[in-house]
Amino acid sequence: MACRCVVLQELEEGEGVKKMKSDGNPKSVGLRSECLDDPIWDIIRAEAKSEAEKEPILSSFLYASVLSHDCLERALGFVLANRLQNPTLLATQLMDIFDDVVMNDRGIQHAIRLDLQAFKDRDPACGSYSWALLYLKGYHSLQSYRVSHALWNQGRKILALALQSRISEVFAVDIHPAARIGEGILLDHGTGLVIGETAVVGNKVSLMQGVTLGGTGKEVGDRHPKIGPGALIGAGATILGNITVGEGAMITAGSLVLKSVPPHSMSAGNPAKVVGYVEEPDPSLTMKHDASKDYFEHLSHSVSGRSNGHSFMK
Amino acid sequence: MACRCVVLQELEEGEGVKKMKSDGNPKSVGLRSECLDDPIWDIIRAEAKSEAEKEPILSSFLYASVLSHDCLERALGFVLANRLQNPTLLATQLMDIFDDVVMNDRGIQHAIRLDLQAFKDRDPACGSYSWALLYLKGYHSLQSYRVSHALWNQGRKILALALQSRISEVFAVDIHPAARIGEGILLDHGTGLVIGETAVVGNKVSLMQGVTLGGTGKEVGDRHPKIGPGALIGAGATILGNITVGEGAMITAGSLVLKSVPPHSMSAGNPAKVVGYVEEPDPSLTMKHDASKDYFEHLSHSVSGRSNGHSFMK
Amino acid sequence: MACRCVVLQELEEGEGVKKMKSDGNPKSVGLRSECLDDPIWDIIRAEAKSEAEKEPILSSFLYASVLSHDCLERALGFVLANRLQNPTLLATQLMDIFDDVVMNDRGIQHAIRLDLQAFKDRDPACGSYSWALLYLKGYHSLQSYRVSHALWNQGRKILALALQSRISEVFAVDIHPAARIGEGILLDHGTGLVIGETAVVGNKVSLMQGVTLGGTGKEVGDRHPKIGPGALIGAGATILGNITVGEGAMITAGSLVLKSVPPHSMSAGNPAKVVGYVEEPDPSLTMKHDASKDYFEHLSHSVSGRSNGHSFMK
Amino acid sequence: MACRCVVLQELEEGEGVKKMKSDGNPKSVGLRSECLDDPIWDIIRAEAKSEAEKEPILSSFLYASVLSHDCLERALGFVLANRLQNPTLLATQLMDIFDDVVMNDRGIQHAIRLDLQAFKDRDPACGSYSWALLYLKGYHSLQSYRVSHALWNQGRKILALALQSRISEVFAVDIHPAARIGEGILLDHGTGLVIGETAVVGNKVSLMQGVTLGGTGKEVGDRHPKIGPGALIGAGATILGNITVGEGAMITAGSLVLKSVPPHSMSAGNPAKVVGYVEEPDPSLTMKHDASKDYFEHLSHSVSGRSNGHSFMK
Amino acid sequence: MACRCVVLQELEEGEGVKKMKSDGNPKSVGLRSECLDDPIWDIIRAEAKSEAEKEPILSSFLYASVLSHDCLERALGFVLANRLQNPTLLATQLMDIFDDVVMNDRGIQHAIRLDLQAFKDRDPACGSYSWALLYLKGYHSLQSYRVSHALWNQGRKILALALQSRISEVFAVDIHPAARIGEGILLDHGTGLVIGETAVVGNKVSLMQGVTLGGTGKEVGDRHPKIGPGALIGAGATILGNITVGEGAMITAGSLVLKSVPPHSMSAGNPAKVVGYVEEPDPSLTMKHDASKDYFEHLSHSVSGRSNGHSFMK
Amino acid sequence: MACRCVVLQELEEGEGVKKMKSDGNPKSVGLRSECLDDPIWDIIRAEAKSEAEKEPILSSFLYASVLSHDCLERALGFVLANRLQNPTLLATQLMDIFDDVVMNDRGIQHAIRLDLQAFKDRDPACGSYSWALLYLKGYHSLQSYRVSHALWNQGRKILALALQSRISEVFAVDIHPAARIGEGILLDHGTGLVIGETAVVGNKVSLMQGVTLGGTGKEVGDRHPKIGPGALIGAGATILGNITVGEGAMITAGSLVLKSVPPHSMSAGNPAKVVGYVEEPDPSLTMKHDASKDYFEHLSHSVSGRSNGHSFMK
Repeated sequence: MACRCVVLQELEEGEGVKKMKSDGNPKSVGLRSECLDDPIWDIIRAEAKSEAEKEPILSSFLYASVLSHDCLERALGFVLANRLQNPTLLATQLMDIFDDVVMNDRGIQHAIRLDLQAFKDRDPACGSYSWALLYLKGYHSLQSYRVSHALWNQGRKILALALQSRISEVFAVDIHPAARIGEGILLDHGTGLVIGETAVVGNKVSLMQGVTLGGTGKEVGDRHPKIGPGALIGAGATILGNITVGEGAMITAGSLVLKSVPPHSMSAGNPAKVVGYVEEPDPSLTMKHDASKDYFEHLSHSVSGRSNGHSFMK
Repeated sequence: MACRCVVLQELEEGEGVKKMKSDGNPKSVGLRSECLDDPIWDIIRAEAKSEAEKEPILSSFLYASVLSHDCLERALGFVLANRLQNPTLLATQLMDIFDDVVMNDRGIQHAIRLDLQAFKDRDPACGSYSWALLYLKGYHSLQSYRVSHALWNQGRKILALALQSRISEVFAVDIHPAARIGEGILLDHGTGLVIGETAVVGNKVSLMQGVTLGGTGKEVGDRHPKIGPGALIGAGATILGNITVGEGAMITAGSLVLKSVPPHSMSAGNPAKVVGYVEEPDPSLTMKHDASKDYFEHLSHSVSGRSNGHSFMK
Repeated sequence: MACRCVVLQELEEGEGVKKMKSDGNPKSVGLRSECLDDPIWDIIRAEAKSEAEKEPILSSFLYASVLSHDCLERALGFVLANRLQNPTLLATQLMDIFDDVVMNDRGIQHAIRLDLQAFKDRDPACGSYSWALLYLKGYHSLQSYRVSHALWNQGRKILALALQSRISEVFAVDIHPAARIGEGILLDHGTGLVIGETAVVGNKVSLMQGVTLGGTGKEVGDRHPKIGPGALIGAGATILGNITVGEGAMITAGSLVLKSVPPHSMSAGNPAKVVGYVEEPDPSLTMKHDASKDYFEHLSHSVSGRSNGHSFMK
Repeated sequence: MACRCVVLQELEEGEGVKKMKSDGNPKSVGLRSECLDDPIWDIIRAEAKSEAEKEPILSSFLYASVLSHDCLERALGFVLANRLQNPTLLATQLMDIFDDVVMNDRGIQHAIRLDLQAFKDRDPACGSYSWALLYLKGYHSLQSYRVSHALWNQGRKILALALQSRISEVFAVDIHPAARIGEGILLDHGTGLVIGETAVVGNKVSLMQGVTLGGTGKEVGDRHPKIGPGALIGAGATILGNITVGEGAMITAGSLVLKSVPPHSMSAGNPAKVVGYVEEPDPSLTMKHDASKDYFEHLSHSVSGRSNGHSFMK
Repeated sequence: MACRCVVLQELEEGEGVKKMKSDGNPKSVGLRSECLDDPIWDIIRAEAKSEAEKEPILSSFLYASVLSHDCLERALGFVLANRLQNPTLLATQLMDIFDDVVMNDRGIQHAIRLDLQAFKDRDPACGSYSWALLYLKGYHSLQSYRVSHALWNQGRKILALALQSRISEVFAVDIHPAARIGEGILLDHGTGLVIGETAVVGNKVSLMQGVTLGGTGKEVGDRHPKIGPGALIGAGATILGNITVGEGAMITAGSLVLKSVPPHSMSAGNPAKVVGYVEEPDPSLTMKHDASKDYFEHLSHSVSGRSNGHSFMK
Repeated sequence: MACRCVVLQELEEGEGVKKMKSDGNPKSVGLRSECLDDPIWDIIRAEAKSEAEKEPILSSFLYASVLSHDCLERALGFVLANRLQNPTLLATQLMDIFDDVVMNDRGIQHAIRLDLQAFKDRDPACGSYSWALLYLKGYHSLQSYRVSHALWNQGRKILALALQSRISEVFAVDIHPAARIGEGILLDHGTGLVIGETAVVGNKVSLMQGVTLGGTGKEVGDRHPKIGPGALIGAGATILGNITVGEGAMITAGSLVLKSVPPHSMSAGNPAKVVGYVEEPDPSLTMKHDASKDYFEHLSHSVSGRSNGHSFMK
């Protein structure tokens, strides 16, 4: 099917991931999503072609999901529609809805590529772009949210909420369609993630499984956290209330954050304390979840002569 | 289909759950669910009618789920049956099973209304009764549990456990059918919730996502927590063993509770300490998850000149 | 169908669960999986027969899943294939794939029995072997992982990863196929469990819901925890980095572990500290999640005159 | 579920359809379908119980379809709903629609029993009532038509036509919902049957596969055949136009009938000629499809020394 | 979704198919299908809107199938994809395949409109265009054939044959993708229709259920019938071999035709004889299936005093 | 999966069915189906490999259906299980049932190969063995019958009849499991075929769509036709009663046969008359359906100057 996606230009300077440093600099990749000149899409197609040859069980899936489409937007719509379908929302309907939204929304077209790059760059277990596109429910739930968010902004709130419900059931990821989420996001593993109605997540943020960006109180209003760009939120961290996690801050796994924390700070514990500051500007990109380790050095007994874990398995 | 549900008494004027006596006795609350005079059901129908007009994609779903039924009980049975079905438990079988249980169990008829009220009152993102009924997996898993609990009590333990298995797979909520759960309950988001076999949850409790009411030891016996009425259990909190969380107590997100805590206390941390007392009688109703914030004031650096989170998104 | 599974001998001394003490000693059970002499399989068949008589709704499911098969391997393949199927991986394909792997892999044949024993012995809510086999998603996700792991080792990495994706979607359990997991494992409840690519889990380990065995940093390499045999990892615990949890160690629920901990130690808190030592050699077998309670005695106010939780419910 | 079907009168002693008066008036037959005293339903339950014991693969199906219901009406609704469902018409919706129609329509309640009797009496391959109820698409399509006919008469023409479309797709039987069909009908095999909008089929008629009761001309109006009670229409016979097949007439297989034929006549050929008269009052009941054989004696060479067909197979 | 269908010319005033020249050239008919000016599509949308208001059970189906699309081509693709889907050919794939073919094939765009007109004009039970589009399997199988034919001509023979197989299974209509079929075709009821590989069907032909256009001999080659424009082939007629049914000829139901028949002739019987000539130029348009009745007048006894069929039913 | 099929003898040189002795004894044919030496299976695999390369949409289907299996028996079981599955009979169950029957029944192993040869040899539109195996519902329904027949003979009559019901619904082919059908059978197109309980069909018979081998009378007993080996039964022919169609006889399309006909005779008409004798020994193999044409020469007007049918289409 001939692609009708909005022709994008080179991402402008200062937008999205392109300002990232060379450790994840998309400028060097030359992100661009003109259909005829979309390097990520070209790579995905090459990956899919190679995988289809190796694994015949999946070759038709790879063809139907990637190789039969002429742009990333349609491939994504196909994948998500088949994941989220049920008798109330048929795959064919969802594909139409997704296409309508994504083909006409330059912001989402940017975001789906920057997010792919984020998954590829930051998740060492994600060996290829096509892997995120086809198999990672973190990526699937994030892009499904993007569509529900666009529908919400178009005033189709009921449909947006129905989609949220379905995303929560299928992926165990619950993002309110009114939440605002930037680009270049990594949702690693995804399971249990909750992002509330008035939450804001900046660009390049990494969110691990089980994170809650929750509200407090039962009043309607701005009641959810704002996460600054480049922040890294560890597994199972709970951040509650209309507070700010500063740009490039790091929240250790399992933390409970009830107060705003400054940029580039490192917070840990339940309740969380600021335990230090992060050296790299964007901890989300380096994913050093144990950066707070040194701080805790004195708290746990080290195991002298660390045994080789492999020996457990014989 | 003509409704055959047991005739209940009236709801008190305009009040819902909040006017319940502290023991949560629904008779004293005066719930009324006579089919011809069920104000919650009337509202749900009006909501569904209005939404069906706005969103044609969902109009038949709204008709089939709400408007074609003549009482809340049947609507709920329809919704749950279609959510939980698989080839072992067909939707038509489940609908019959649910109808049989719910139409003949006055307790469940009370509870499904008080729970609806709880979701509507306490979850600011839940804008309507019909929303909880149709889309919130917290509500779906809670009501499905109620049926499995009734089956367990009827001696159909195998079917009850098969239902638990299915609820866990579909909603990622794992409640043992033998657990005892009161009325006016909010299960917010739901994902990851675990409630063990001998747990007891009082009326008007609010349980956030990722909460565990778990046992300890491998012996059979009374080994799970008892949660007092009106308690609020924060996201990811783990409460283990046959201990008591007192009436109106609040457990902060991420806490690990291994000891009983007194009524109206506020506990926090891993391991949890009592860090204060709650002012309102039922913290579950106000949902102030950050009530322990002041206590922790000195623990985290506040961000001076809190930046506007929205600026992250441009 | 005539069973073609590899005929196994008595498990050799010093392997797997058989060295367990009499509280879970498989030697006393006489574990063996010769088709004609497999006591676990005999028990499962008897359980299924008994349950089929009690609950006609499930009788054909029990027949198709258990009674129509002639060995545990095939029964398991049938159950998992029907759980994980979607249009990309048909149940009939999955059943063939699972059969091919399991019927030719003596290690998996051991493991599926030792794991069954573990679920039966350690989860008091799991009243029978057939229960774990048929209904527990912890068991289902573990055995599905075992197949994906075998495929990974055969070089079919793409199929292995596709299976991981499907397991994560269906069971909300995300185990990388390259992870190495021993025998006699209990995954209780399962929801939210994440086990990374280079993690190693020893024999007889018990892992509760929401546990993360995660990596740190975005570099490829050995970056995940090694869990020693007999360890017990509590609900929601997060263990990050290439560190070692010593043999027979216990990690309390909700802990964040960033440093190796010694054998038989008990660690708790966020960040985790070693708070004591475990008396029994394998805390995974006794499942006393609150073993650290005494240590914390001074931290929380005890509730004098503990009220009877049952009174909440009337 | 407690049966709410309209209480009917008794069936006469041991007779079924055959003793009906020639106008087939079920009131005079004295059909009884009180739930507590419905002999056909009692037999069906006994058959299902016996079969469930013999064939465990089908035991749950038999339970769900027959044994879990308390009257024939509900059992039938369950069976048809699961046969006809698709994402547009969910099984749960269809079951409600069927129940609503059948539980309130005494005529249909009569007809489903008389039809069952007809299948059992006249199709030697139909060894039991439950067989027709559960497995014969002739019976399924006939009863589905009865519901669509009732919906048509209620003014729900669009739904009635949608149902016709679905019946045609699933059963390859195409009966217009406006057609009028009596009781005690046998649709043998069913495939290819077409009955047009203004056709009328009397009581006790037997229609073989591939029969067309078609219209002529493109004008709207009364343009389809009227088939008298007790008639037998052979396989593949085509009867066109607003003509009458007289009471107790027989139309040989493959005939083309364009003119009315008198009562108790036997018509054959393409185009059909009256070739004789039928001895028994209702050829539909004896099903002697080759009654015209003698007439044609001279037309075909008889095979002298008819070989034993069985020898073909050895 | 913005329609990209090829712009067609206008339909002449109020005429539809009937005013087509005998060669059926749609250009001379002046079919217009510009998206913004497509009268058939406008009517279908109006019909769907009206029906959606009357029947809420079907309103979302009508929205998804008709109202959410911006041209007939896409609506048709949606409907057929959902009818024909199975795990090998997902609805989303089929919708893409159908869109690709139909949006780029002006001939099919003509044909789907002329066929709609044919169903509406000639089948008195087809009260509206939307009825044929949404519910008639004759129309569905015909348009699905058109796609398989285009795929065959593109050289995708395997896919074309797979589609044929699926059409035969779902609709019980078996048309070889290499067969050549004109425009303005009515397939009434459809069940049992077989059209062979080298058959040719002219414009404006009407084919009733059960018709065979079959080959003879097992040699490959041109071996199937050629049906002239405007011919009417009655139910169950079998036409075998590379013979010609002349323009405007009529074949009576149940006929067996083994020899060519001249234009405007009327053939009947098994074997078929020419029994007269047809007065109107296109018997397919008037659908007088009993036109041969007079010829047979002497063959069957008329029923004097034709009884009122309705009396059978009382 | 390692093939366990019974080792068969060799096929004679390059011949397939045609060289069978007239009694069709497969032993004399010397069919060989040793897994390592099964020429038909080798060809099918080669065909599937070639097609998978040409059509990626179908490559995984071809892999799953053919290439992943090691013998024809398993491939067939896979294909049929996925065609016939529904929630009562899961694909995985059906695959086990089919495997159990076919892997242990040498007769069926013969028959599935001779039937494949028959489809390939006699249906010019069937270009390959794999085509019949994968796509032709005539072949699918025939082999499904063979399994139901074996189950019937094993005494599992209820399951056999349930399978018949499902075959009739899915393929519109209704063959009683007690019927006896030889080898080397062609069921062309299949739709509408009905074969009764006591019918016998000899080897090498060809049966076209819409054929009925029906009974007469309502008495139980031997009441269906016996079709001699090598007979050819034309489309829509109806053969009724316990009569014999002699070896090598031909029944013209649309015939109604009520009397036995001699070997090698040609019968035609309604009612059928013997109109000649067939020259070749097995008309089923040459498929000259119009062999009776000459006999009818005088009956229809020939079209002088037969127009080129192709001109209808331009």
